[in-house]
This record gives sequence, C-alpha cells and structure tokens, in this order.
Amino acid sequence: MSGSESAVLTTLTTAARHAATSLSRSSDEQRARALRGAARVLRARMSALLDANQKDLMGLSAERNDAFRDRLTLTPERIEAMAAGVEAVAVLPDPLGRVLAEWTQPNGLQFRRVAVPLGVIGMIYESRPNVGADAAALCIRSGNAVILRGGAESLHSAREIHRAMVEGLTQEGLDPCSVQILPSADRALVGALLQAVDGVDVIIPRGGKGLVERVQREARVPVLAHAEGLCHTYVHQDADLEMARQIVVNAKLRRPGICGATETLLVDRVIAPALLPPLVAEMSEKGCAFRADKRAQAIVPALPAAQPDDFATEWLAPVLSIAVVDDVEGALAHIARYGSGHTEAIVTENPQAAELFLNGTEGAVVMWNASTQFCDGGEFGFGAEIGIATGRLHARGPVGLEQLTSYRYEIRGKGQVRG
Amino acid sequence: MSGSESAVLTTLTTAARHAATSLSRSSDEQRARALRGAARVLRARMSALLDANQKDLMGLSAERNDAFRDRLTLTPERIEAMAAGVEAVAVLPDPLGRVLAEWTQPNGLQFRRVAVPLGVIGMIYESRPNVGADAAALCIRSGNAVILRGGAESLHSAREIHRAMVEGLTQEGLDPCSVQILPSADRALVGALLQAVDGVDVIIPRGGKGLVERVQREARVPVLAHAEGLCHTYVHQDADLEMARQIVVNAKLRRPGICGATETLLVDRVIAPALLPPLVAEMSEKGCAFRADKRAQAIVPALPAAQPDDFATEWLAPVLSIAVVDDVEGALAHIARYGSGHTEAIVTENPQAAELFLNGTEGAVVMWNASTQFCDGGEFGFGAEIGIATGRLHARGPVGLEQLTSYRYEIRGKGQVRG
Repeated sequence: MSGSESAVLTTLTTAARHAATSLSRSSDEQRARALRGAARVLRARMSALLDANQKDLMGLSAERNDAFRDRLTLTPERIEAMAAGVEAVAVLPDPLGRVLAEWTQPNGLQFRRVAVPLGVIGMIYESRPNVGADAAALCIRSGNAVILRGGAESLHSAREIHRAMVEGLTQEGLDPCSVQILPSADRALVGALLQAVDGVDVIIPRGGKGLVERVQREARVPVLAHAEGLCHTYVHQDADLEMARQIVVNAKLRRPGICGATETLLVDRVIAPALLPPLVAEMSEKGCAFRADKRAQAIVPALPAAQPDDFATEWLAPVLSIAVVDDVEGALAHIARYGSGHTEAIVTENPQAAELFLNGTEGAVVMWNASTQFCDGGEFGFGAEIGIATGRLHARGPVGLEQLTSYRYEIRGKGQVRG
Repeated sequence: MSGSESAVLTTLTTAARHAATSLSRSSDEQRARALRGAARVLRARMSALLDANQKDLMGLSAERNDAFRDRLTLTPERIEAMAAGVEAVAVLPDPLGRVLAEWTQPNGLQFRRVAVPLGVIGMIYESRPNVGADAAALCIRSGNAVILRGGAESLHSAREIHRAMVEGLTQEGLDPCSVQILPSADRALVGALLQAVDGVDVIIPRGGKGLVERVQREARVPVLAHAEGLCHTYVHQDADLEMARQIVVNAKLRRPGICGATETLLVDRVIAPALLPPLVAEMSEKGCAFRADKRAQAIVPALPAAQPDDFATEWLAPVLSIAVVDDVEGALAHIARYGSGHTEAIVTENPQAAELFLNGTEGAVVMWNASTQFCDGGEFGFGAEIGIATGRLHARGPVGLEQLTSYRYEIRGKGQVRG
C-alpha cells in the first residue's frame, strides 16, 4: 500500500478509536435513540436514497447478472424494511454492562466480569446496501465504532445510508465518526484496513466465499466470518423416516442459497433402502438435482455419480450430494473431511447416537432432529445478526449484539494489598 | 519461509489437529490422569532433566546475564514445583462441557451454548522451562492440542519436559501429538507457525515485550497476549490517605518486575501536597527512584524531572513515574494517552468518582481501592494462568482454563423444520 492510503486510513481509524471511547461511555438510551433517528432519516430521505441507488445501477457493468442487479436495487419497500430493521435493533436489550460473572475472593476482593464494546469494527460487504445499515445499527447499539466498506458498485447508496446513520448520531450528541465509510472504491484502502492491527479490533466480512476468503487471506486484523457453509444432515439408522424426510427436504430446499442450507445428505446403510427412493423421488419433483456416491447409486440407480469435488462443494442451489455411511463414526469421518465447521445435523430417535454425533463434529452449530436452515441469528432469538462465524476464537455461530461485546474485569476492594 | 519449513510445520499441525479432535472427545478423567502421570514422570526423570538443563546452561553465551541464567536454571526444587504445578492443574474443575447458556424458542427448539476446546494452540515462550510444562498442562486439561516453542537456549530442557507430557498422555491412551515441540531452534519454523492460519487456532506468546511485539507483528494467526503492562494507580482527591499510601507502595514495590506492577502514580492536585512528601520519603527509603512532572516537582522539589518518554515506559523496576492531574477526567486522559490496556486502579472513598474511572479506561482489569499487583490468574481464583491478554477479542485479563475454551451451539428438536 502507498503512503497516502495509509495516511487516509490512519485518519479514519484514529477518529474511529476516539468515537469508540466516547460511545463506550454513552448511555443505552442515547444509542437507541440515535438508531431511531437514523431510521427516521432513512424514511425522510427516501427519494435521495433512491436517486443515489439509481446512479449505482446506471454505472453497473453490463456483465453483471440479474441476481446481482437485484441485490443492489433499492425500492421504497426495501428502504422501509431497512429503516424498520434499524428500529428493531434499537429495541433489543442493551448488550453492554451485563455482569457475566461475579464472585468474591477470600481476601474480600469483589470480582465482576462486565460486558464492554469490542472497540472498532471493520465491516466489509458486497452489493446489498441494507447490510451497511444493519451492521451500523448493530455496532452502534453495542457501543462499537464501525468503518463500513460496501461493494464498489453500491458506493452512492452506501454514502446515503451512512449519512442517515451520522444524522441519527449527531442528533443525540454522539460522535459522528462512530460510523464511517471508506471514502472511495479504492481497493488499496481495503488492503490498508485489513492490515490496521492498531486501529481496528476485528474485521467482519459478509458476502460470498470469494470475498471472505480474500479477507481471511489478507487480513492481519482478526476476522469473524465463515467462508462457506458446507452443512450436512445425517440420517441415522434409528431415525423416524417421516421426520427425516421432512427435515431433509426443508434443510435443502426451503432456501437453497443460504449458508445454513444442507449440501450433503449422509444416510446409514441400514436405513438407506427405505429412505432414499421415496425421498429422491419427492425432491426430484421439487426440482432438486443429485450427486451420489456408489453406495447410494446401488440403491437408486438413476442417481448421477458424484465427481471427486462434489462432496467439497457448497452448492447454494437445489443440488444435493448423497453418501451412504456405515454408522455415526462413518458420518463423522465424512464430515471431518469435508465439513466447513458451520452447521451439522443428525436425525435419530437414539439419544446415544445423537450425543456421539453432537460431540463429534467441528460444527459451530450442531442439531438433533431439526433442519439446518435454523442456523440464523433470528431463529436463535438474537433479534439480528451481523454474520455467522466458524472460527474458534471469540464468537461462533450467529454473531448478534452479545457477540459484538468483549468484557473487562472490575475489582472492588477496601484497600487490599497483595502479600 | 522455505518449502522444507513449511512441510515440517504442516506435519506438526496436521498431527496436532488430529490430536485436538481426539482430545475433544476424551474424558475429563483421562485428561486429569494424563497430567498426574506427566508429573510422576517429571519427578522420576529428575536427573535426566537436570542433565538436559546442564547442557542448555553449558551452551549459554557468555553475554547472557545472571538473571537470564537464573531463569533458565532448573534445580530439584524447581522441578518438584513444576510437577506440583502440573498436578494442580489436574485438580481444577473441567472447563469443557459447561453449559454457558440455555434457552428454548417458541417453536420448541432447545438451545445450549456449550464450552468446547479452542483446538490447536501455538505457545511461544522464552527461557523459563516451567512455562512449557504449565502451558502443556493447561492445554491438555482444556482439551487443546499445543505446539510448544521455548527459547532456543532451553531446547534440551524443553525436550525433556515434552517427553514427560507425552508419557503422561500415552499412559492414558491419549494422542501423544496433543503436545508437540518445534523440533529445532530454527527461527524460520517459528515464522511458519505464526503464519499457519489453517493449522493453528491461536498463538499465545509469553515473555518480554520484544518477543510479544515480534509475534504480534508477524503473526497471521490470532494472538492472545499483552506486550506490556503500563499500569497506573490514580489517587483521587477523596482518597483515604493511609489506604492510598499502602496501595501505592504495594502496587509499585511488592514485585516491581511483574506486568501488574504500577508504573505511574497519578495524584489529584488537591491531595498531592498531603500525599506526595511522606510517600516519596517512604518509597525512597525502600529503594524506589522517581520521574516526576513539573506539578509534582513543585510539591517535592527533590524529585527528578520526567523525560518525554518516561510516562510511556514500563519500568519493571523500582522506578515510579509521577504526574499530578486535575481530576478523574485528567487521570483518564493521561491513561488514554499512555496506558497499555492492562490494569488501572483508582483509590477513592467517592463511589461516583470510582464508577466514572472504572468505566472510563481501556483497561482489561480495573480496580477500586486495591493494588494492581492483584492482576494475576491465581489471585482471580483461576488456579493457573497461561498469560494475560489485553486485546479485545475472545479473552481479556488473566487467561486460565475457561479462557482456553470456545463454545458450540447444540440445538435439540423434535423434527422442527423452518417455515
């Protein structure tokens, strides 16, 4: 990176650090009101936001497909939903100041572990403008300063959304630099952000595998993210067949494009002849395609053969990989080889098998007799999420307000000194 | 790094990952027994360990000072203490499987957040051989695989200690690769370890500022650490003078070389004329030197003047920087400028001032009417610590067994699918 990017970034991170300190001392009510103010501005400036979005759409390369264009497009309904989303974060319980643990030592010192903000968050996302509003709302609510970097194609929209957040903050007397935006689409600035170990406490990338993997590869700042959700549903031999059918159909087909969608079905060999033929028939009818190993093909010969990489592929589409396994250990070995540590599910009526499975995978989220599509902050009761993490450090699974906090220890004494 | 270092490291991390998976499925009793076994081996092989340590000492460069040589030296008493330390970790409560949160959603799904190991830990330390034994014990107890890298000067000692840990593990049928050691003093291997984002989940450096800063600068794997403990004790105008005197003397002089020692005394101007003269006299008598700002010099003219960098210096010695401030905000501003986010203390009888201070610094640990020397895992009741962290992500303050865990979500259903 050149000196000028580094200078721009230092200006941003210095302001962010200052804002974070000030936000951490603001009241819950101030932060909530700032969000309600930002939502009002989003609605009041709807036509300016639509104009900005129009500029982004006009500038879009003809090579971008319809799905990309759709993700970038704002409508009055989508802006209303964005404003409502910001308001929804305002009514969530304050994640700061929670006493996470409390004890007294024999010498009378009183210890408290108390939730505090993380500090400065770098949020890198793609073309969907509402992600910027959601992320800014969650960060403000949790007392964190945030530096937003949306997709280069959505810069005008992102700037309008940023402006609304800043107005909400200033109306409450909060530091406007609590939410900043990278001032240009310059990729080198993103590189500088990813390296800013002193200025940024955590980077949260949200988008496709390409974006997340690039961030993970280049960042020196710690990253909370998941690159892919290669989720498995395993039907154990003691499964209720009807329950298994419903779960697998839902886990794959409810919304095949979300990260919690099941990509691979594992079936115990004992139950596979009963489960697979009707299940494949039903899912085929619903438009699902398949990639099957030899043992599954032996049961349903019409199934197309899986290619070597298929079990390592996150389809994000109505395509299901199928493998027949011997038992729980066989399923765990398959998942150890191909899983991405996101969400893994077992369907069984056998509690021992379930516990063995739940304790045996690397999944951030493990389920027993439920659809992997439930891996979502809303379904967890978190109210909103900024992303889903599959790393081991700090937060795993859906990242909501609580996960955007750290803690400090407060020790209250009466003059104790150490012997 | 060359291809060969990378290949060596991949071998180590692959074995570590495998061991971590197997350890995460082992029983608490197995892990505790492995530690007791390792302690027995440490005692049984005491003479071999003393011989190995002798080799290290013979190889030591003449430039190393006595303090360095002392840290490296093992004696029968120190080996006994090391074995007892490993046994002490064995009797701590199991940090795994704790249910950190539990709730049920309206659709009947039961959620549990359960403590699981972090995975693979890279432990980088300096010359004190017992750090390797302590770290290995804490990692095994918490179900984590660890790759140890001690100081190049202590390689023979480290290998003997490693051997004892491995024997303890194998006696229990646990994977011996749960504890590994970098096979040579090759610095390039350390570089490879710091870059191994897929193979290592967290790096914990323990040693001087030079080591920690080098690790923080070079690592792409997340780091749990503190580079320095530039701790402040602030005496507020409403302090009990006698309590303040006792706390300051203890916070500075009990053990000036630990990271929780106070380096800078901040005093409210109103109380400074009453506090400083007798305090400086007493501490001078106890061998303490001083670096004072102009306002403190105006009260005690004999105090030597602070140089520009003095307030940014972690003395780790009987030297105290002194500054007079106007009030709590003045103290907070000083700490914001010079603090390292480690431990900050206020002495006051005024609860409002105390709360303002506790909520206003970036300290991982903040204290009211207590000596900063209490910042230590043992004093917190953690039983043992692998280090102290000042970052925002994952763990802050003393890092004990609990802090060496992550969590997963377990969701138990009865066939629920998402609508």
